[in-house]
Amino acid sequence: MSNFNELKEIVCRQNKRLKKEGLVILTWGNVSQITPDRKYVAIKPSGVPYDKLSPADIIVVDINGNVVEGSLKPSVDTLIHLEIYKKFPGISGVCHTHSSYATVFAQAKKTIPCYGTTHADYFNGPIPVTRELNGLEIETEYEKNLAKTIAEILNPEIPAVLAAGHGPFAFGSSADEAVENMSVLEEVAKTALFTGSVYSEQGAVPQVAMTAVFTSSSRFLNEILFKKHYHRKHGPGKYYGQN
Amino acid sequence: MSNFNELKEIVCRQNKRLKKEGLVILTWGNVSQITPDRKYVAIKPSGVPYDKLSPADIIVVDINGNVVEGSLKPSVDTLIHLEIYKKFPGISGVCHTHSSYATVFAQAKKTIPCYGTTHADYFNGPIPVTRELNGLEIETEYEKNLAKTIAEILNPEIPAVLAAGHGPFAFGSSADEAVENMSVLEEVAKTALFTGSVYSEQGAVPQVAMTAVFTSSSRFLNEILFKKHYHRKHGPGKYYGQN
Amino acid sequence: MSNFNELKEIVCRQNKRLKKEGLVILTWGNVSQITPDRKYVAIKPSGVPYDKLSPADIIVVDINGNVVEGSLKPSVDTLIHLEIYKKFPGISGVCHTHSSYATVFAQAKKTIPCYGTTHADYFNGPIPVTRELNGLEIETEYEKNLAKTIAEILNPEIPAVLAAGHGPFAFGSSADEAVENMSVLEEVAKTALFTGSVYSEQGAVPQVAMTAVFTSSSRFLNEILFKKHYHRKHGPGKYYGQN
Amino acid sequence: MSNFNELKEIVCRQNKRLKKEGLVILTWGNVSQITPDRKYVAIKPSGVPYDKLSPADIIVVDINGNVVEGSLKPSVDTLIHLEIYKKFPGISGVCHTHSSYATVFAQAKKTIPCYGTTHADYFNGPIPVTRELNGLEIETEYEKNLAKTIAEILNPEIPAVLAAGHGPFAFGSSADEAVENMSVLEEVAKTALFTGSVYSEQGAVPQVAMTAVFTSSSRFLNEILFKKHYHRKHGPGKYYGQN
Repeated sequence: MSNFNELKEIVCRQNKRLKKEGLVILTWGNVSQITPDRKYVAIKPSGVPYDKLSPADIIVVDINGNVVEGSLKPSVDTLIHLEIYKKFPGISGVCHTHSSYATVFAQAKKTIPCYGTTHADYFNGPIPVTRELNGLEIETEYEKNLAKTIAEILNPEIPAVLAAGHGPFAFGSSADEAVENMSVLEEVAKTALFTGSVYSEQGAVPQVAMTAVFTSSSRFLNEILFKKHYHRKHGPGKYYGQN
Repeated sequence: MSNFNELKEIVCRQNKRLKKEGLVILTWGNVSQITPDRKYVAIKPSGVPYDKLSPADIIVVDINGNVVEGSLKPSVDTLIHLEIYKKFPGISGVCHTHSSYATVFAQAKKTIPCYGTTHADYFNGPIPVTRELNGLEIETEYEKNLAKTIAEILNPEIPAVLAAGHGPFAFGSSADEAVENMSVLEEVAKTALFTGSVYSEQGAVPQVAMTAVFTSSSRFLNEILFKKHYHRKHGPGKYYGQN
Repeated sequence: MSNFNELKEIVCRQNKRLKKEGLVILTWGNVSQITPDRKYVAIKPSGVPYDKLSPADIIVVDINGNVVEGSLKPSVDTLIHLEIYKKFPGISGVCHTHSSYATVFAQAKKTIPCYGTTHADYFNGPIPVTRELNGLEIETEYEKNLAKTIAEILNPEIPAVLAAGHGPFAFGSSADEAVENMSVLEEVAKTALFTGSVYSEQGAVPQVAMTAVFTSSSRFLNEILFKKHYHRKHGPGKYYGQN
Repeated sequence: MSNFNELKEIVCRQNKRLKKEGLVILTWGNVSQITPDRKYVAIKPSGVPYDKLSPADIIVVDINGNVVEGSLKPSVDTLIHLEIYKKFPGISGVCHTHSSYATVFAQAKKTIPCYGTTHADYFNGPIPVTRELNGLEIETEYEKNLAKTIAEILNPEIPAVLAAGHGPFAFGSSADEAVENMSVLEEVAKTALFTGSVYSEQGAVPQVAMTAVFTSSSRFLNEILFKKHYHRKHGPGKYYGQN
């Protein structure tokens, strides 16, 4: 009997959750989790629809990408997940999707700025965008080089990165946390898109007495408030949640 | 047996309704209701997912925030709810979410102007935005100071406030009414966002004969019509609904 | 036994359909149908949630608004429905909602221009917006005067009108057709909103070789194509559908 | 017993899938598939709602449009499907809808530019828009002429075309693949719409230190990356999926 049954169940459930939370269509996303000894990674098989996925389909690879369990081909993005696990010992779950609004920022090659406390509750700064790969990096070991550009800018206190022209990656201490961060990222991207559009509309600035109560001159969230919210949920002084 | 069983059931149901109506993801919202003697408040526990929430999990605190029933930690926003109950005797239900479109206006630090009768049916004026807290207010008794800025601008005839850079709060004579006002606020915010964008687009003004029927020069809703709709549903002359 | 049982079942079902098709939240919409002899109208009671509505709750009024069957108060918009039935003998179903995108155009007081064949398949021209009521018209017999402004611009070949600053009304030869036209109107409004925004964005015009295949200089749908689509579905030469 | 039972089941299921995936409302879409000998085509009947559709309702026509099985009228767009099958032997499935975001680009008469790898994974270039038909082409053999303008620009490596002022068509080696390509097209259109709006907003360019990580000067996806993604999923060197 496999030693990876529990891990495969977790990874299967978190992959299916992508569909349930509206983060993917078709087969456009994958989630993995690494074992505590950091030797093995369970990941989604390539191109399998979420509603047909069962724990038995989940592939286990070693840290070098050799399949140790499973009869299907692992996700085409497996090498990206492995590179992240090698370079970031604090990360044990990786999630990649093409969720709509995060993909909009990735395609626009724009960082997601810090507009609100929702952002601050999860990410200790703006969501960065990778540099673009050069031709050689694309044509030779593409997935490994994409992972390299993600690693160049990944800060574990901001557990998400936008791959330029591609889509979002999110990270966590487990597959569950990586998927939760992806959900948050998508909502943060959606509200940031429209917050930006309100700021860019001259016509939307309320000028008449009936509508004017308060207008701030600063477009981004006050930095003290930003840090307050991040630390309310993370680190030694946190007081959100039950632990 | 607890004296608060019925209250806890109401508050549990209204918290779960946030998810059902699409007003929250994850654990991003909380609803409370105060007892008629205004001594006790039932509120959601911090960080508990809505689908796992049962009436037994609901926390009862006294008006000073001491837990009198329940084994979990109350919402991190409990002090905000209590301050509102202390200052507004007509308010018996409070709801806080990060619902997408209301959060867009909160993050843009813009009031929601009075564009239509949907707005007028529920809110007797534009939805105000709080001033930003200063550094001292954030670092010392943050939640209490946030409540103070909400109270500074809260008008019970406009039972909703946007916390600048944060998200919406809605109020009512019960938890049910507070959640209903939050649903309305989110829809009002959504249509206001796009109404503003239509106004700001030069190109969208129909100029050809085939499309020109009527164009008003006034951007906001006529004030007489606004008041007519508000009073059709509220106050002594109201004639909407069954009562 | 009531002579109106079948009519009340139809009207109940069409009111519930508003919720199912995402055209309303809370109690924000009403549907009615008139009898073939044009003497009686069945309509939703005021302020009753759709999931609690049963055929027995539907109110029957005579053409002057006197309740002839039902114990609840009829919709506050009943007079508007009656005025339309009196003036347009070809209309036997009326539907009113605050559906999001149609309400955006109503609030922006802008007609919905003819951008595509989807529009032409149902409406033989742009969707008109009413003029605004003056103070006297609002303060005296408001609902009757609102009906008057709708009647001023209603063309049965374009079975929808936007009430300025308020929301959409749709019409048909039955309650079913009125609700279908409301569904179409909402989708037409949504695509028109974003079509207008694409036209207004200078930056979105594809200029590079990789993206340029065809760009039209005309913003609105070619009139010959518009008429072709309208007549493919309506009138003597129609060939869409099974009849 | 019919020789077409299996084909009719496939075509029925793929038509119903349009509704399930949110690509249609009412009866606004149709899917067909041609037999391997390219003599017969199974297609949706005109104007029948998806939830009432059963395999027995599916119409089989020969390649010239004569009904060989079925008692209902075939889709009003049948001639369009047949023309495509005649001219493109590699295409065995055709799908037409009025899905919201693809229709926005069709109505704006703008190609969908190549903004990201999601696009590149399925379409080897921008999604083209047909030229507009002239008056004679609309008034005489409209559907056949519309098919002609689609065929003028259809490249099987880009299995989708936007009919100007109308809506999207998608193609595949089966009805299933045509519907999958329609789903992808709708998502690509949605993210392209908002990517374009981010590019067109001056105010959204992050200028402050807290938000600036990387900004590309090129608006469209790097061409080498585009081709890498297309060939990762298509052609001799593909390595995505299980085959």
